[in-house]
Amino acid sequence: MSPERLLIIGGVAAGMSAASRARRRNPQLEIIVLEKGDYVSYGTCGLPYYLSGQVKDWKELLVYSPEFFRDKRGIDIRFRHEAVEIEPGRKTVHALRSGAEPLAFSYDKLIVTTGGAPALSIPGSDLPGVFTCNDLAGAIRLREFMDSRQPKNAVIIGSGYIGLEVVEAFTSHGMRVVIFERSEQVINGIEWEIGRRIEETLTKHGVELRKMSAVNSISGGAAPATSSMLVHSNSSSAPADVVLLSTGIVPRSKLAADAGIPLGPTGAIAVDERMQTSSTSIYAAGDCVETRHLVTGKPVYFPLGTTANKQGRVAGENAGGGNARFEGIVGTFATKVFELEVAKTGLSVAAARASGFDADSVTVTSISRARYFNGKPLTVTLIFDRSSGRLLGCQMAGEDCAAKRIDVAAMALHARMRVQDMLHLDLSYAPPFAVVWEAILIAANEAVKKLAR
Amino acid sequence: MSPERLLIIGGVAAGMSAASRARRRNPQLEIIVLEKGDYVSYGTCGLPYYLSGQVKDWKELLVYSPEFFRDKRGIDIRFRHEAVEIEPGRKTVHALRSGAEPLAFSYDKLIVTTGGAPALSIPGSDLPGVFTCNDLAGAIRLREFMDSRQPKNAVIIGSGYIGLEVVEAFTSHGMRVVIFERSEQVINGIEWEIGRRIEETLTKHGVELRKMSAVNSISGGAAPATSSMLVHSNSSSAPADVVLLSTGIVPRSKLAADAGIPLGPTGAIAVDERMQTSSTSIYAAGDCVETRHLVTGKPVYFPLGTTANKQGRVAGENAGGGNARFEGIVGTFATKVFELEVAKTGLSVAAARASGFDADSVTVTSISRARYFNGKPLTVTLIFDRSSGRLLGCQMAGEDCAAKRIDVAAMALHARMRVQDMLHLDLSYAPPFAVVWEAILIAANEAVKKLAR
Repeated sequence: MSPERLLIIGGVAAGMSAASRARRRNPQLEIIVLEKGDYVSYGTCGLPYYLSGQVKDWKELLVYSPEFFRDKRGIDIRFRHEAVEIEPGRKTVHALRSGAEPLAFSYDKLIVTTGGAPALSIPGSDLPGVFTCNDLAGAIRLREFMDSRQPKNAVIIGSGYIGLEVVEAFTSHGMRVVIFERSEQVINGIEWEIGRRIEETLTKHGVELRKMSAVNSISGGAAPATSSMLVHSNSSSAPADVVLLSTGIVPRSKLAADAGIPLGPTGAIAVDERMQTSSTSIYAAGDCVETRHLVTGKPVYFPLGTTANKQGRVAGENAGGGNARFEGIVGTFATKVFELEVAKTGLSVAAARASGFDADSVTVTSISRARYFNGKPLTVTLIFDRSSGRLLGCQMAGEDCAAKRIDVAAMALHARMRVQDMLHLDLSYAPPFAVVWEAILIAANEAVKKLAR
Repeated sequence: MSPERLLIIGGVAAGMSAASRARRRNPQLEIIVLEKGDYVSYGTCGLPYYLSGQVKDWKELLVYSPEFFRDKRGIDIRFRHEAVEIEPGRKTVHALRSGAEPLAFSYDKLIVTTGGAPALSIPGSDLPGVFTCNDLAGAIRLREFMDSRQPKNAVIIGSGYIGLEVVEAFTSHGMRVVIFERSEQVINGIEWEIGRRIEETLTKHGVELRKMSAVNSISGGAAPATSSMLVHSNSSSAPADVVLLSTGIVPRSKLAADAGIPLGPTGAIAVDERMQTSSTSIYAAGDCVETRHLVTGKPVYFPLGTTANKQGRVAGENAGGGNARFEGIVGTFATKVFELEVAKTGLSVAAARASGFDADSVTVTSISRARYFNGKPLTVTLIFDRSSGRLLGCQMAGEDCAAKRIDVAAMALHARMRVQDMLHLDLSYAPPFAVVWEAILIAANEAVKKLAR
């Protein structure tokens, strides 16, 4: 009897986590990964730091090399194999290969990790000076472009966290940067006091943010003269030698949908806690699936590298014969905007209200550690339900350890705490790290006072 | 009708927190604080950094000045008033004043915040070159001594966190330091892998640690020739120009006990969740009381500045007519040993076993953030109950944001999580702050594997 075959479509975070875990769970399994590109097992979240030069060589972004997977883990990676059709009935995946005949791969278990794709396509987004920062190949092309063309003017379309991370890479190369943001705030779901700190930081570094500016086209810049593009929004234009499209990503779920695998309400692949699709032999994980938001209990599309790794591991464990569960997320993320750390977990006020909560919020600005240890202002917004006091979300901004501090709030969300339960949390204190009253405790106190009003 | 009078014995963390809160709660209250020394409202936890010079002037350690309390908060502080007797039946406190007649103070509500006292007294501990670091007056004397005498050889007796914090102050003044520790480990309750990192750090900085060395006397050094003391332990001696006694503190509960206020099993004053003693008009808070350990449910003596502030606030709220509660602690503390951050929450393996848990542990060393952001090794020990998987404790050591990371474990203890619940916690991640798999998640995974064995 030949061994069972696990086929995995996609070899980035979720895919390679799944492959590694399945191998550990089941040493007999044949594991094949179909990767449409040239790279596997890299940290997508590190791409902005490759652009900035903080990461010198893209190979530093690789968690493991292809040779490691082949030689040490017995995982067979097929590069430049683009899966184009899943036939669940015949348990077969068809893949295109550049310059070769298509190939059919049978499987016993299949894990779909097709990831996400840039959300927006606008006229001119196919110009050679327009880039995304969604995968390693794109980042390598952008850095080559920056190195060879030395662009002076940059435009970033969309002020989500990827856009804001690339701002720093652009300015560190001496570029003048204009950001177009179609809404009235940076980063979707960020409360205004936190957003204001982000905007102040951008201003301080000479970055121009144009809010309420929806880009509708990019003109000029056709090859071979790629410079002198013009980016046009509903209200203004800006010249650009290089453009980054960072308007968020959407799930690449069409391959699964075409095979009859149901999508969820978000348009991403629907999976259960075992990361199983409606087909018992097909799992999915990462940026192509939706997951459960543990605050609302509802499915949400929240593509992030940490979640992709966890889901991939669960899918791999189960495809290998185990029984692991991924319960969901509380919506934690963190980013760095120049020296400012920004973090968010749970729901914004608007999202909480949209989910039926009677949401309210408080914001306090305190200090990160003792003044004589160079403590920095730390802004905390707590979002809570007025009727029960339940914590619904938290956001933080500060220059000193704000990002990891959000984890206290993430834990409170996992534990479904109320702000009333958070007044006297026994958090660590010593002058080199903290102040006696952590900002989140002060904020909880303010929230409780507000509940009493 | 004259206003109610709140009398507070002791004006450091718990006492002044109580006074401030009572004032906020009740603007009519007459508030008098009896402070036996010359200073109020200072951060005891900052004293080692005053010794090191990180804090230039001791006034930086004051949260508020006496004038602020008098003028802005209407709080009447009586310095050099040492309470020597409480008469609960007559609601009166008798206080000694240096160079003046004793005074009697009546009260309607009394809050006892008499703090803690150095635990150990050994022959020679009254020599003029022997100091403690338990209050501001002592720290000022020690710094004056260091500045004027320029000691070369220092001995620290006891390797708790205060001793380890003062090590850095001593070495930063060019002193050669020997630490005597009577047990086989540094910091009570620290697991050995964490302790090893502390010991390696001490060695790296040229500090000599002598374990299993119980000091039994200090000789020489009588005034006026204070140099050339000799510190004698059961196994060796060491010369010293200055000696720090840092063998922990015990509650100053005698004043309360003499008044018939019951102490708890730890020897500290017993209080309920409202910080009330057995007498309805007498509250107590801070280093003189015991508190409930939320992991064991049992009373514990765990004197720390954060807890004192919280308890003081609750006592003040209630003495002012409110109804606040302090539920207890999970035993979180953090300290810095040179560049190494050390933190602990919950129970050690030994303490957990002594409390009847079937305790086991795992330790992992991972990395604090992406390597290209100069990530540092982060060691995490998880202590858990084998029969249920319940998390019982956590300890961390590392040079990069280890202290604030312990808060995730503190939250898990507050929420009574099991290690099985901690595999997929949605903690913040971005390469400048973290790695995809936080060390505590890796440790939880190892713990779950160990449970299955």
